[in-house]
Amino acid sequence: LDYQHVQVPFEITLWIMLASLAKIGFHLYNKLPSVVPESCLLIFVGLIMGGIIYVLNDKSPPVMNSDIFFLYLLPPIVLDAGYFMPSRPFFENIGTILLYAVVGTIWNVFGIGFSLYGICQVKAFHLQDVSLLHNLLFGSLIAAVDPVAVLAVFEEIHVNEKLHILVFGESLLNDAVTVVLYKLFRSFCEMPTIKTTDIFAGVGKFFVVGLGGVLVGLTFGMTAAFTTRFTKDIRVIEPLFVFLYSYLSYLTADMFHLSGIVPIIACAMGMKRYVEANISLKSHTTVKYFMKMWSSVSDTLIFIFLGVSTIGENHEWNWPYICFTVIFCLVWRALGVLVLTFFVNRFHVNTVTGKDQFIIAYGGLRGAICFSLVFLLPDFHRKKLFIAATTVVILFTVFIQGMTIRPLVDLLAVKRQRESAPTVGEQIHIRFLDHLLAGIEDICGHWGQYYWKDKLEYFNSKYLQKILLREYDQPKSSIVLLYEKLERKHAIELAEAGQLGHAPSHPSLLNDNKTVIMDKKVEDALNPDVLENIHEILARNLYRIRRTGPAYNRHTLPGDTEPVEHAKEILILRHRSL
Amino acid sequence: LDYQHVQVPFEITLWIMLASLAKIGFHLYNKLPSVVPESCLLIFVGLIMGGIIYVLNDKSPPVMNSDIFFLYLLPPIVLDAGYFMPSRPFFENIGTILLYAVVGTIWNVFGIGFSLYGICQVKAFHLQDVSLLHNLLFGSLIAAVDPVAVLAVFEEIHVNEKLHILVFGESLLNDAVTVVLYKLFRSFCEMPTIKTTDIFAGVGKFFVVGLGGVLVGLTFGMTAAFTTRFTKDIRVIEPLFVFLYSYLSYLTADMFHLSGIVPIIACAMGMKRYVEANISLKSHTTVKYFMKMWSSVSDTLIFIFLGVSTIGENHEWNWPYICFTVIFCLVWRALGVLVLTFFVNRFHVNTVTGKDQFIIAYGGLRGAICFSLVFLLPDFHRKKLFIAATTVVILFTVFIQGMTIRPLVDLLAVKRQRESAPTVGEQIHIRFLDHLLAGIEDICGHWGQYYWKDKLEYFNSKYLQKILLREYDQPKSSIVLLYEKLERKHAIELAEAGQLGHAPSHPSLLNDNKTVIMDKKVEDALNPDVLENIHEILARNLYRIRRTGPAYNRHTLPGDTEPVEHAKEILILRHRSL
Repeated sequence: LDYQHVQVPFEITLWIMLASLAKIGFHLYNKLPSVVPESCLLIFVGLIMGGIIYVLNDKSPPVMNSDIFFLYLLPPIVLDAGYFMPSRPFFENIGTILLYAVVGTIWNVFGIGFSLYGICQVKAFHLQDVSLLHNLLFGSLIAAVDPVAVLAVFEEIHVNEKLHILVFGESLLNDAVTVVLYKLFRSFCEMPTIKTTDIFAGVGKFFVVGLGGVLVGLTFGMTAAFTTRFTKDIRVIEPLFVFLYSYLSYLTADMFHLSGIVPIIACAMGMKRYVEANISLKSHTTVKYFMKMWSSVSDTLIFIFLGVSTIGENHEWNWPYICFTVIFCLVWRALGVLVLTFFVNRFHVNTVTGKDQFIIAYGGLRGAICFSLVFLLPDFHRKKLFIAATTVVILFTVFIQGMTIRPLVDLLAVKRQRESAPTVGEQIHIRFLDHLLAGIEDICGHWGQYYWKDKLEYFNSKYLQKILLREYDQPKSSIVLLYEKLERKHAIELAEAGQLGHAPSHPSLLNDNKTVIMDKKVEDALNPDVLENIHEILARNLYRIRRTGPAYNRHTLPGDTEPVEHAKEILILRHRSL
Repeated sequence: LDYQHVQVPFEITLWIMLASLAKIGFHLYNKLPSVVPESCLLIFVGLIMGGIIYVLNDKSPPVMNSDIFFLYLLPPIVLDAGYFMPSRPFFENIGTILLYAVVGTIWNVFGIGFSLYGICQVKAFHLQDVSLLHNLLFGSLIAAVDPVAVLAVFEEIHVNEKLHILVFGESLLNDAVTVVLYKLFRSFCEMPTIKTTDIFAGVGKFFVVGLGGVLVGLTFGMTAAFTTRFTKDIRVIEPLFVFLYSYLSYLTADMFHLSGIVPIIACAMGMKRYVEANISLKSHTTVKYFMKMWSSVSDTLIFIFLGVSTIGENHEWNWPYICFTVIFCLVWRALGVLVLTFFVNRFHVNTVTGKDQFIIAYGGLRGAICFSLVFLLPDFHRKKLFIAATTVVILFTVFIQGMTIRPLVDLLAVKRQRESAPTVGEQIHIRFLDHLLAGIEDICGHWGQYYWKDKLEYFNSKYLQKILLREYDQPKSSIVLLYEKLERKHAIELAEAGQLGHAPSHPSLLNDNKTVIMDKKVEDALNPDVLENIHEILARNLYRIRRTGPAYNRHTLPGDTEPVEHAKEILILRHRSL
């Protein structure tokens, strides 16, 4: 038996296997996941595993290695988050998100830090040896909302898009602020004296980390898009580039002490559009599926490790400090959200309601990032107290808040996610309004979001697409023309079903050679995935518009009519047109 | 800058990136890959990279680590090979393959070993210090045909199925023999005296390694199939199990000093059928695609590393030894193939032709497995000579034989792979003959392959399927009935194209509730992928049978008629039937 030789891959595989089997186990009983969030169950499994290891080995189980967490477990989750980020709501609320992420996090850090310092001055608590700087350092790591925990809980409760993007966007972007403050305070702790210039350098670092991260991410994203221009002959390695470039952006940023999360999000959001147009449909399915799979496994492993690491002897218990930490985390976050939302609402027509504010404050879950950061702290005599306090805050937020947030959302009747996709009518109107608003902003001389969006879109179609896309010359045909072509394509597909790949053109179009060639060109230029999507949207909506147009009735909704009726009529119409 | 921190993942990512970009680069010029096999190009890139590293650092570039090769690079390739192994030709020729793999490899090992020992006795060559045991050890590592190299070359030349499976199957299965002989001679080298019992123990080990490997693989494969029974609610982690279990089988075998290749192949071949039936279509695409991607990257990395590792100062040059190694490798393989095929052909009706024998002998490429094994040798004074000889043999076989095999195949007019899939008629006849032969064998009392296949199939449908498949109760309907149902399903799909997911049943069938329910059951029970496949085959073939039946003409082949004509007629027929 030669275990030493295969130990590393064997144990990694076994951990992943445990995580996957745990996931299957939970889903065998359908009722369990609907009551308790998966993250709680996984932490619970971890606690049991940790307990077993502790009892068997008679020593503390291995703690989640911070390097493993930051280098291998976190990137897949962030990549998944960035790649599937709904870009429109994100950019529409970018101001609010940044306000929460930057000002809100700073507010929390200093609020928690100073008030814990106040607690430390109470002689009865025996905490006078914890300095202000150490409290601020602790505040900087405990203040940040954790994207992994937020995602795990919010994915299951389906709140409306805006609320979701506010909490989730904040949890992603506050990483840049946390990294700066954490590193700043840590270096301050090791300095003998702190000069004013150091503080100004710290403030300057915010911009470097934020903008530098975005720049690194976009650079890698554009390179990835450019690379996929040339993969036409070897489709099989296409999915790889999505993973390689985004991981490289993360590592590069990490190397330069930037936040790793911001670049990977910028990279994923930047490349998505171009990569999707360049790669094949199967590659695209693989990318999507593998990303989801990978992030799901990472997520599971993180929560299990969190549970395992909780068991052990590296905790120092101090009731007042730990209790007040939990209370201050809750209070300062609530206050921060209230104050910031007050300012946000003054500048927006579409305000953040009171219920939303409550969910934003209540959804501020802490997770594995805090946990990894607290273990990365330099050794000093109160480190074990900080570890204990962090563990309690994480368990409190994940278990108590995570388990009660769903009933609360139900109770408050918070606006939910809309189930149906937007109709073509809506899409046309949204686009029309975008152009209109861009025009108005241009005339007013107001450089608002629509103005910039319009400029960006122009830049994109004028330069970026030509460089990054393999086939960018889509003729701009009207929607109805496209619909006709798609219908014809569908009929051809039907005919080809028996002779797939042998009959490239529709028999009835054979005489009209020019049309066929044009059709072929249009169809070739469009990505089959996009084509299918358009087809579906058009078929569903054009039909509906025609139906609801003449017989419009205030009391029936477009979706009310019997779907079988629709299907029957479409079938008849289609056969007639053939 | 903190490079140390991210070094490991950063460098791994960069190597993978280099490999992928090299692959893209070759395919930009379409002519290059059609003349030179990719493996040669990649070794060439590796040589350049190694040269650059050598010049810049002024020392030998890092050699491919044998642990990395065996633990991380080899498994994906073998998994891919096993998963996509065509099982029918493999099992039909299993006797011949085993003969080549076991007897052929032993023949080569002892042939090369003894004749090199003979060369060492020539005083003029200054090689008297190389003992017989060392020569046999060297023979054991140089004799084995490498699956990675064989796959890389044979994938591009498309020889007929039987020839391909003979060479490729041998290259996979001889690993078990190589492992046993290599470890045996290595331990003999370190022993002071060798007893007769040691030799018998060595012979016994063959069976342990071979049968043990198959057992380990099948155990993990069945467990994987059983696990995927329960993944219905979390489709997203399904692909993981295919990778996890097969990797575990590899590692477990490695841990027990068995050959790693045999178990992973047994695992992949065993689980494929059940896993595919259990997992969703998208999971299946992801598994297939990711496996191909992964093995393609591993393959690329192996050849690049092979090139990089060639450069350096760990070679000892001795013209006679190296030249005779190359010659003996060629000669003994050719002789072995001739002798073994002579015996094989005496027992088979479907003989291995002279041309095939030449390609089998000529296709015995050596690759990275030899290379990794030679570096794993215990240190002794002639190790550098062995490294040099191995490198030369690998480069000779990959470059000279790899590049000339395609023109030779063309020149000899070796029978190529058939391009079209077998028709339904052929499939029905093959299955009929299988049953007939099984019956004949049963009556004769001859326990041949058909007898065993029939027994296995019975055992499978009676026990295994019930345990391993989620839904195994497919009603056995006749082909025509199925065809009708599929036609109806297609019409429903057509109708649903506008209302996908809203209209679950066909309008015209709504009155006939019982039929609809039966239809639904049949359709649910069938995997959509299988369904599509059947649909395509049936539509293509039933049509063709009907056409060629009454108007059969000796001078026209079934496929000759204009495909557009077919398509038109199918379209008309289908609409009439609706």
